[in-house]
Order: sequence, then C-alpha cells, then structure tokens
Amino acid sequence: MNHFFKVKSLEEVMALTGRFSPVESEKIPVSDAFSRVLARDLVAKQDMPGFRRATMDGYAVVARSTFGASESGPAWLDITRTILMGDIPDFTLKLGQAVKISTGGMLPEGADSVVMVEHTEQIDELSVEIYKSVAPLQHVIDASEDFAKQEIVLSKGTFIRPQEAGLAAGLGFAQIEAYKIPRVGIISTGDEIVPIEAQVVPGKIRDINSYTLSGFIREAHAIPVLYGIIKDDLKALKKAVEKALEETDMVLISGGSSVGTRDFTVDVLSALPDTNILVHGMSISPGKPTILAKVGKKPVWGLPGQVVSAMVVLKIVVIPFLNKLAGLDKKDRTIRIPAKLARNISSAQGRRDFIRVLLENKDGGILAKPVLGKSGLIRTMIHADGLLEIGDHVEGLEKDTMVDIILL
Amino acid sequence: MNHFFKVKSLEEVMALTGRFSPVESEKIPVSDAFSRVLARDLVAKQDMPGFRRATMDGYAVVARSTFGASESGPAWLDITRTILMGDIPDFTLKLGQAVKISTGGMLPEGADSVVMVEHTEQIDELSVEIYKSVAPLQHVIDASEDFAKQEIVLSKGTFIRPQEAGLAAGLGFAQIEAYKIPRVGIISTGDEIVPIEAQVVPGKIRDINSYTLSGFIREAHAIPVLYGIIKDDLKALKKAVEKALEETDMVLISGGSSVGTRDFTVDVLSALPDTNILVHGMSISPGKPTILAKVGKKPVWGLPGQVVSAMVVLKIVVIPFLNKLAGLDKKDRTIRIPAKLARNISSAQGRRDFIRVLLENKDGGILAKPVLGKSGLIRTMIHADGLLEIGDHVEGLEKDTMVDIILL
Repeated sequence: MNHFFKVKSLEEVMALTGRFSPVESEKIPVSDAFSRVLARDLVAKQDMPGFRRATMDGYAVVARSTFGASESGPAWLDITRTILMGDIPDFTLKLGQAVKISTGGMLPEGADSVVMVEHTEQIDELSVEIYKSVAPLQHVIDASEDFAKQEIVLSKGTFIRPQEAGLAAGLGFAQIEAYKIPRVGIISTGDEIVPIEAQVVPGKIRDINSYTLSGFIREAHAIPVLYGIIKDDLKALKKAVEKALEETDMVLISGGSSVGTRDFTVDVLSALPDTNILVHGMSISPGKPTILAKVGKKPVWGLPGQVVSAMVVLKIVVIPFLNKLAGLDKKDRTIRIPAKLARNISSAQGRRDFIRVLLENKDGGILAKPVLGKSGLIRTMIHADGLLEIGDHVEGLEKDTMVDIILL
Repeated sequence: MNHFFKVKSLEEVMALTGRFSPVESEKIPVSDAFSRVLARDLVAKQDMPGFRRATMDGYAVVARSTFGASESGPAWLDITRTILMGDIPDFTLKLGQAVKISTGGMLPEGADSVVMVEHTEQIDELSVEIYKSVAPLQHVIDASEDFAKQEIVLSKGTFIRPQEAGLAAGLGFAQIEAYKIPRVGIISTGDEIVPIEAQVVPGKIRDINSYTLSGFIREAHAIPVLYGIIKDDLKALKKAVEKALEETDMVLISGGSSVGTRDFTVDVLSALPDTNILVHGMSISPGKPTILAKVGKKPVWGLPGQVVSAMVVLKIVVIPFLNKLAGLDKKDRTIRIPAKLARNISSAQGRRDFIRVLLENKDGGILAKPVLGKSGLIRTMIHADGLLEIGDHVEGLEKDTMVDIILL
C-alpha cells in the first residue's frame, strides 16, 4: 500500500498551461461583452471624443479673453449664442466673445476653453462678466484627448469590465472578437456518492462536488456541464470522460480520494488514446492527490473527492489554469488581500499549505483568523472568507505577520 | 442659473434603502443557486455527514487498542474485514480488532478512530502492527460533526457562493428559496447621444452609459434591461420610464449632465403618480448631480450623463443599494483592499472624493497610484484598478498613508 508520487509544485503545474491552447474566438455583440476576454487588439477607428467638448456648464471662450480677470476686475464678454447639446456650431468664436454651453457640448471653432458658470454673472441678454481667468484647454476635452485614431485602446487577452465594454461601445464597435466561453465538464465518481434527491442512508453521501465545482466555474465566467455520478467502474467512467471531452474544453473528475481509486482515475485516463499524464500529485495541502492529464489537446483533472480539498484545488490551481484557457493573458484575476495574522500558525515544510481564514476589520486594517475545525468539515469553508497561502519552505507564521489572503 | 441642491451624504442615501422592500422570492433548483441570495433560513433536515466517517486511509479501530503503541513497541491488532466505499458495516468492532477503511468510508459500530496507513504495517492477511496511538475521534468526522439536524446552516440574506451551494446540495435540498434576480431598467437620455452603430459626427457622442451601466448590473448578478436612447423630450422620457417601471425592479436614467436637463429628469419623475424625490444631489465627487426618487414602490435613479461620473455613482451608491433590493442582509459585497498611497493627494472638504487609482505590488504590500488625466476621460477608468475614498472632513492625504481601495 505504499505510494510514492513524484509530486509537482504549484508553479510547475501552472507552467503546464503552456502546453494547452486557448479556446477559439467568436464575434459577439458588445452588449454581451462584459466578463468576456478580448481575442484581438481593439484599435480606435477615430478620435475620441472626436470634437472639442465642454466638461463644465458655462461659457465657451478664447482663453486669452479672460486673462487677468478677477472678482474686482472682471472681463466683459459679448454673448453671441447658446450652444445646445448635440449642436454643431457653424461659426467661429472671436476674442471678446462668449457662447453659453453645457457639459458635453461642442465648442465652436476658435474657442479653446470654458469658464465655469459659477465664475460668471450674466449682465443682460448680450453680455457676461467673467471673474476668473481660464487657461487654454481648461474645462474641455480635446478631440483626441481620450483616445486617438489608430491607437490600440485595449489589447488582446484583456478581461472586459464594465468600463472596457463602454469604451468599445463608445468607439462604435457594435461587435467585438472575444474568446469563446470555455465549457467545463464535471464528473463525480465514487460508489458512496448518491444524487442529491436521494434519501441518504449511512455509508452514502450526497453529491456535493458537482455543485461546488460548478459554482467556481461559473464564478470564473465559464460554463459548467454536469455529467452526473459515475460508479467506480472503469468502462462507465471511460465512456463518461470520452463524452465530456467531446462536448467541453476541459474535464474535471472528482472523487477517488482513497489511494485505490486515485490510481483508478489514472487507469481510465491512460486507457484513452493520446493521453499524457502530466501531474500525479501536487505538493499542496489540501489537494495532494491531484491529477492532470492532457488527453488529445484538452486538459483533464483528477480532483480529490473530499469536498474541501476539491474546492481548494479548484480555487488555487484549476481556475487560474482555466483563465489561461479562456484567453486571459493580463493580470491574474485572483484577488489577494493583505491582512494581519490573528495567531501563530504552524505548517509543514516542503509543501504549500492553504489555511481557511475569516476576515475581520480591525484598527483600520484586516485581521485574518484561522477557521477552527477539522479540515474535512464543509463548515470550515462556509465560515471562511479566504485562504491563507503558506510557502513551501516556511515552518509556520507568527501572530501579527502581514499575509496575503486569497478571497473566497 | 443658480442651483442650490440640498445635497445628501452617502450614508444618508444608503439609509434610504430602508424605504424599499427586497424583490420577491422563488423556488430555484440548487444547481442554479450560485450567486443567488437565500430568502429563507436553511435548516438541516438530518445530521451531516450522518454517520461516523474516516478522514484518512488506514484502519478503523477502538482507540483504546492503540494506547501506548510506538515504533519500538507496536500494538498488534487482528484484521477482521475490509470496508469498501459506500459499504454499511453490519458488525461491531471489538477491542484488539481493526478493519481496513478508506477516506470517506463508514466506521463500524464500536470503532471510534482511524489509524493512518502510514503508521501501520500489515504483517499478514489477518494482522497489522500499529506504530502510533490514536485518540478517540481522531481521523474521523462524527455523524453530526459538520452540521446537526435542526441546525440553521445558512441564514436568510446569505449570498450563495460555491460552498453554500454545495452545502445545500449535501443536505438534500434539490431546491432552495431564493430572492428573484432583480431586473434593472436602463434609459440613456440626451439629444447629443446616438446609437453605437451610428457614424458619429462632431457634436454627437455614442451611447456609452447603457453598456457600462449594464456591465456593473451584471457584475452584481442582476439583469440589465436596455430601453435605448430617449431624446430630451418630456413626454417620450415619461413614457419610457413608465414602461421600465412596469417591467423592472429599479430604473436608471443616465444623462442630463447639465443643470437644465437635470431639472428635466426631476420634472419627468414628478409628473408620474405617487412620486417622492428622496435625493436631489449628493455630496460625492464625481457624482454630485445624482437623483433618487421613489415612484410607487420602486427606486428610480437619475445619474450624471458624464460617463466616468455615472460609473462611480453606480459602483459606490447604486450597486450597494441594489444588493439590499436583492435581499442581501449580510456583509457588504464591495471588496476593499488596504494599500499604501503613492503620493500626496488633495481633496475638498465637505464632500466624499473618489479618486481613480491603479494598484501595484510592492515590497510585499500594495501601492495605490492615483491615475493621471482629466476626470472626464474614459481612459482614466480603463487604467484604474480601484477607487480611493477620501472622507468628507479630510483636506487631503499624505504619501504613504494606508488607505482602503474599492476594487473596480
């Protein structure tokens, strides 16, 4: 019953993303762009905003007309017109003249700045006093000041937040080229696992992993596809994996937390054509019995059946891996929050430990309190706000150490 | 052209959530539970896991049989059986006996602990040496140790993360009672706004707000419903608002960044029956010209037309407000990250300033660098990772001050 895995580190596993290609791309309407990943650089087709615009309500002027103006010595200007929103002024503004303008309005030819209405007083229909001078380009956005024609405004691999979606819309892209949304197949295995609708009997346990794993997949903006519960039967599992590989971009097999069934997953994967077992054990805790294979061109993961371990492996390893498949090549989307450790904590050397913590605001900072309870209890994940990562060569951390918490 | 708003603080506006009821609830399959909000306490219908389970591969024993065992003086136990995954043992284990068991397996009557396989050596078919003693309940999870029957495991108002979805599944809830997903109507107004497909001409600007606002709504797990661009026409806008109020739970009107059109939005809302203008101006920057009305039972927001201001108001005010409507009554879901300010920054007293910052990892901490550029440029929101909040009574912040950043 001895088992010597040649375990890989987290970094070694992440480096394997290079062996897989991102999913294909497709054209999508910009209204669906939020949470997608850009598959081609977005290049401005014209200047933005495209004309000189007021950023304040007031008067468009030639800045020089206001030089030296003050409360005690205001400048007098002639009001020649009012520019309404959306108007295209067809005249040229001259020294000594002013036109009323609202935020967002287009400045006429000749005008180079806007005096805020708060610094003026209209004397009559045709004249206004200016109490404060403005500099050229003050309170305006110039024609190409936001983005210039031909500029790369967003690069390939960018995650599209609300502001990126708005920018694409503002530049007139009704459609953008985005990576397809990855589909992830989820298979639960184990003779002890029963469907959630089952009346549970001693010795059996309901399928939890299908639901936690698909939650993490959805959180990562991908699509989970459930293939149900497969008994510990080589033929049945092989068939399920083949089907999942046909229909999805990545497959997760959870279960087989015992030594025997772990090998079972490897046996099944090895029985598939064109399989390469890349990882058979990782030096992280929880999550050691993690398997990664490349079957054809697609990644297949063997995850621990133990529910907490499966969640940690998903969050720490599989989701960052999935992000690469999804085309992301910018920042890691994992959110890490600096916090102060609430008590001493010990750790084994030679592996990366992930400790569940709850976060509390304290003294203007954040306190990370390790969650108590056996590691197999789901309760510990319910109480946890994040995971504390402890390095491979660290024996433990002292109270008050500043640590990074991966948000759950 | 004077305009004196009785501006409200952020806290005063947030307190108004109390005037609105959360959306209704519905039964949903637990497979759709991720990102929903629980509308009723979830009470365990039975113990979890429901039986005494092994958390390690090894031998189930009566702990007392191992007391005093060591490398030099191992305990000898009789192997009576092997328990397979999903087996229901129908015998009672006695002192001096051991049964093989895998992680997740059910312990037989009488057994109270598991010896890890690493601390044993099987001598022959029928006997095993134990090199380390175990305590009662070591390496097992007891029948009700995760959750006990009748316990409230998740309370009403909880945001359902992957682990909460898994827990509900594990407890046998095929369906849960969740708040409906709020629908948010979005109306863009302004004579200068044209559809994104339009060939843009000077003086006109494409509709950006519909896309940024719907992105933030989707990020908050709600459903945006676009009502397009409405010209500055009282009758047309009134009709659009009425339609949106009928079909959605909350309405956003963006546009009218100039003083005149701001009043226009108020005029339209006032013309609707049963309207109460709750907010007419907020002491935040950007975002001062924000309007909130209660029309019938629903909130209607008037947002600045300026795209950056509209985004900040959405993120800072409208989304936390929406979370309350969505039924959330636990933690605020806004993520705040402690960071060190990279340079001095000034701020006006009497208002809450929100400064766009980009975040950089430095010396084990996070550095917040204010984004340069005029506040009206979308570019500044593209470069920003977060917003720095500066309090009402703060004149400015010094370099190296620790600050909280609201993640964008």
